[in-house]
Amino acid sequence: MALRALHTANRRAFALGRRNFSEKICMVGSGNFGSALVRILGRNALRHDIFDNEVKMYVHEEMIDGKKLTDIINETNENVKYLKGAKFTPNVVADPDISSAVAGATMICFCLPHQFLKPMVPKIKASAAPGVKCLSAIKGIDFDDKGIVLISDIIRKELKADCSVLMGANVANDMASDAFCETTIGYKDPKNGELFKLAYDDFSLKVGTVQDTVGVELCGALKNIVAIGAGFVDGLGYGGNTKAAIIRIGLKEMVKFCKTFYPNDGISDDTFLESCGVADLITTCYGGRNRKCAEAFAAAGKSKSLETIEAELLGGQKLQGTLTAKEVNHILKMKGMEKDFPFFTTVYKISYEDTPLEAITTTPY
Amino acid sequence: MALRALHTANRRAFALGRRNFSEKICMVGSGNFGSALVRILGRNALRHDIFDNEVKMYVHEEMIDGKKLTDIINETNENVKYLKGAKFTPNVVADPDISSAVAGATMICFCLPHQFLKPMVPKIKASAAPGVKCLSAIKGIDFDDKGIVLISDIIRKELKADCSVLMGANVANDMASDAFCETTIGYKDPKNGELFKLAYDDFSLKVGTVQDTVGVELCGALKNIVAIGAGFVDGLGYGGNTKAAIIRIGLKEMVKFCKTFYPNDGISDDTFLESCGVADLITTCYGGRNRKCAEAFAAAGKSKSLETIEAELLGGQKLQGTLTAKEVNHILKMKGMEKDFPFFTTVYKISYEDTPLEAITTTPY
Repeated sequence: MALRALHTANRRAFALGRRNFSEKICMVGSGNFGSALVRILGRNALRHDIFDNEVKMYVHEEMIDGKKLTDIINETNENVKYLKGAKFTPNVVADPDISSAVAGATMICFCLPHQFLKPMVPKIKASAAPGVKCLSAIKGIDFDDKGIVLISDIIRKELKADCSVLMGANVANDMASDAFCETTIGYKDPKNGELFKLAYDDFSLKVGTVQDTVGVELCGALKNIVAIGAGFVDGLGYGGNTKAAIIRIGLKEMVKFCKTFYPNDGISDDTFLESCGVADLITTCYGGRNRKCAEAFAAAGKSKSLETIEAELLGGQKLQGTLTAKEVNHILKMKGMEKDFPFFTTVYKISYEDTPLEAITTTPY
Repeated sequence: MALRALHTANRRAFALGRRNFSEKICMVGSGNFGSALVRILGRNALRHDIFDNEVKMYVHEEMIDGKKLTDIINETNENVKYLKGAKFTPNVVADPDISSAVAGATMICFCLPHQFLKPMVPKIKASAAPGVKCLSAIKGIDFDDKGIVLISDIIRKELKADCSVLMGANVANDMASDAFCETTIGYKDPKNGELFKLAYDDFSLKVGTVQDTVGVELCGALKNIVAIGAGFVDGLGYGGNTKAAIIRIGLKEMVKFCKTFYPNDGISDDTFLESCGVADLITTCYGGRNRKCAEAFAAAGKSKSLETIEAELLGGQKLQGTLTAKEVNHILKMKGMEKDFPFFTTVYKISYEDTPLEAITTTPY
């Protein structure tokens, strides 16, 4: 119904010649996943009247064979560095300047390592449209001395903006070939949830929505801890029963963690049956770099550190799962709750202490 | 608390010399899964005073190299035909006669193809202890002209007995090596749920319990339809995103099916996060014969019938998933609800009608 209202408003706006009613989209970030997402935003901006045709993409400039990446993208409609082989529609415009990229934007999507976020805030604030609506596709969580800090809360606080989140079983390279997949948008404001759904829902990407940003966002971070556990099971050579059990135990602890630390934020059981929950967990525990490194770590009987394996296998990319496990453990210790989360605690202790690998199945969960 | 009460009662019974207070267990069935389960029952019967040491196993007699299978089992403590390489404790006694196998049994577990069940009923009724408690580990559902018939309901009705169910991510050959896994017992009577948990919970098998027999039992049957869909995705060569999406869509339809057809039976959302739900679904969609045959069917572009592939790949075993898809479709048609279950309907139509394989992702779910 909210969607229909939007469409009606949109049609009315056009009829009145108020073209500035259009929503202007900017993607801040141009990595593998950000590029896969902006490819869909570009298509949908052309498809739906409510969106301005042009979709801006903020690109951290770099040189590729003597040419600027932004120039290459704008000439070839392809992010040759981070999503090779997948064409954008020509209305996707790369911009190396954050201020001009977000100038007049009414909808900003964030998809970049979260440490790059804060320094950009003043410029975004100065350039974006008043009342800009945000969406975070950043996977991860931050921590301060009081506990967990959600990335979307940083955006909300710093930009004084509403912020939805997008998480799901979305391996970017598979999305690039338009293989059917799903994603989940968690929203606070239903109107903005519907608007971002309109921007992302596509023949190849089915968007589900839930009014639960916290659950969706935490799923995106916590699943990587579970993938580390699943990798241990693979490295130990245990079978499918054991792996399914560990994934399930991990999922239950994800649910418990969300409900324990956000008791008043409307965490919905349904969230965990959405793409951001069980589906993303499955892809991450069967594919994905966290699982792969943890498998290698276990297969080598902990004879190499995770840092060494990370360097050997990931070529500069970072292992999110062990980092999240460490940060979650820090919180659990701080609150005296390690025993209440035996799975997260065991993954942490196997990864960083002398707890044997076998504890992944012998711990009483 | 129910468990503690049982223990106390048990101790008291022993103190009074009332040894006949002991629970006497019989497993009806001796296939791959039944053998894996009775192996655990044997160990636990020795471990807990409340159980009579001897655990009977009804075995459909057959000759192996000129020797009776029951004799081989009782001499070697191994079901050499159906679970080779895994030893039973010697208190597991194979018996080819159903009447003597269940004689005096206070707990009967069923694990055999359900069509063999009804003919045995009169003998079981005549021989089992009054008030016998049953548990069904039979995966599948039956149908009559009114709709679904649960196997556990057949047991309840025919034997006038309470019946719990046991389902989970339990590939029998993995259980035989004592690799850690989980299972779920769904119960109606909490006392019996606790008792069966005591009989099955083990260092290698973690038992979860839910007061929801219908949800647990339907999970065990419906997951096989989802595995067929997952196999199609594999055969079409789609990636992990797509497969995770299809598994998730299937899971949601499993939940909906349970709640639609059993609105007053206390179907619990938690059931689907137990081993019988998401975990069993994962193992079945990544391993398992349903997935494998569906993959071959799709890879061959539907050029061979599922019956042919079944015969080629399964060597006499039956494909549960397509059978269940057909029977579920029969119910949905009867109730005019095919459109309400687009995933189950699509799996059926791809399997048995001329709907193209690609419909597995292009159907609007």
